[in-house]
Amino acid sequence: MMKVLVVLMLVCSVYAEETEILSDQQDVHAALRELTASLAKQEVEVKNLQAENKGKQVAFSASLSASGIQTFGPFDRNTPLVYKHVVTNIGNAYSPVTGAFTAPLKGAYHFEWHLYGSRHNGAVLMKNSENIFLAFESQSSDYPSTSQGATLLLEAGDVVSVHLWTSSTVHDSNDHLTTFSGHLLFTM
Amino acid sequence: MMKVLVVLMLVCSVYAEETEILSDQQDVHAALRELTASLAKQEVEVKNLQAENKGKQVAFSASLSASGIQTFGPFDRNTPLVYKHVVTNIGNAYSPVTGAFTAPLKGAYHFEWHLYGSRHNGAVLMKNSENIFLAFESQSSDYPSTSQGATLLLEAGDVVSVHLWTSSTVHDSNDHLTTFSGHLLFTM
Amino acid sequence: MMKVLVVLMLVCSVYAEETEILSDQQDVHAALRELTASLAKQEVEVKNLQAENKGKQVAFSASLSASGIQTFGPFDRNTPLVYKHVVTNIGNAYSPVTGAFTAPLKGAYHFEWHLYGSRHNGAVLMKNSENIFLAFESQSSDYPSTSQGATLLLEAGDVVSVHLWTSSTVHDSNDHLTTFSGHLLFTM
Repeated sequence: MMKVLVVLMLVCSVYAEETEILSDQQDVHAALRELTASLAKQEVEVKNLQAENKGKQVAFSASLSASGIQTFGPFDRNTPLVYKHVVTNIGNAYSPVTGAFTAPLKGAYHFEWHLYGSRHNGAVLMKNSENIFLAFESQSSDYPSTSQGATLLLEAGDVVSVHLWTSSTVHDSNDHLTTFSGHLLFTM
Repeated sequence: MMKVLVVLMLVCSVYAEETEILSDQQDVHAALRELTASLAKQEVEVKNLQAENKGKQVAFSASLSASGIQTFGPFDRNTPLVYKHVVTNIGNAYSPVTGAFTAPLKGAYHFEWHLYGSRHNGAVLMKNSENIFLAFESQSSDYPSTSQGATLLLEAGDVVSVHLWTSSTVHDSNDHLTTFSGHLLFTM
Repeated sequence: MMKVLVVLMLVCSVYAEETEILSDQQDVHAALRELTASLAKQEVEVKNLQAENKGKQVAFSASLSASGIQTFGPFDRNTPLVYKHVVTNIGNAYSPVTGAFTAPLKGAYHFEWHLYGSRHNGAVLMKNSENIFLAFESQSSDYPSTSQGATLLLEAGDVVSVHLWTSSTVHDSNDHLTTFSGHLLFTM
């Protein structure tokens, strides 16, 4: 009788410990679930950051003449300049067929355009159908140059292009004097 | 007697296994603590990266005349240019009231300023009270233009502005010829 | 006899539970191993993002004359311009000894150069031995200025510099009129 009692007490103590182990296991599982969820959230955040950096790879640089000395204008109305000699076009957002840059995603973009011409030397940056800034210089003789730059907040699909100003004349050659460049600053 | 002994041996084997389970549980808890700490550290790093990217959203572009054809200068001393027509002002670091850009945080910033004027055509970029670079062109007739650009390392609170050069004259109109743009390149 | 049987049944039930606990522990260990591996992977990704941001800290701005009024050219061949007055040189990729910028890592870089001169006023941006774009203005009197900009995809080690154009003359002074700036847009 005594022996059985002792064994029973032993079994009961083992049983009590087991109950504790089981309760602790529930805590462990809860902690694991929480960690797994937090880690999954981090993975999404990191992926977003990587995509953000990757998406920033938008930049182009082009000059007007595909080959040889060329003169554009004067025309009696603003006329798109199509820069044919493409030096850089990461992200392929600039088209040397239309001369237009199409924003691949919402963000802030920087543009600059440099002109080499004669007499009246001007070109305007357009965002869709809106004039932004005008580069203009006028000299009665020799070869004036002018430059302009602008930073624009664009929606995906917005189109940016440079239009030769009415009555203006620009030149380009294999020396690449009349140019258009742009790049994404940051997405929004 | 024999039966009790067998049961005792069984109980002991169960007990021994339980001791192992408990020791393993200590390992599991140590591993969970370590993982939790590492994950918390990662979360801070990712938040910092996100804040870094978010903080980079500083860019402005403005032209001089709020409306209509305007002439500024000549003055007998350098005079701040206040660009009234704001095209872009992400982060609100540029003030169209004072013409000054105030760096919101330490980093490298790019600035450019383009002038359309007559006779003497010049303006200097100032960082606080220091002259940085001067855009200048001089032509006795017609309308010269000039451009300049600079990249500066700024502390938070540093003020950058463009000042019309002594004896210079610049023009602006609804075509937006005289402009000032800038943006954050990276924080430091 | 009955008592021993009851105890045996108790022991067996405890034993069965222990087997379940052990099997669960294997699951816990598997989950811990998986979490640890995933977290290690995240730590690498975050480190890469941080290095990417850190690596982007490349920007310089310099003007031609170290001190006082200086005239460069005209020369009978293109000649490197060595900009001596360094305003910014984060990442030390620009050398005021050679005038050359050496790309520290593969990526897209933006460059701009602004000239103040007389008569023929020109300078070309070179990538290694290749002419990229030419800034040029010609005026028979007074002081013309001209600017140009380009964005280039460079390999680590590529060298970019500005060369005074044949027969051109540029000036600089403590007002810093003739300048060269560049910065990394993004690594690739």
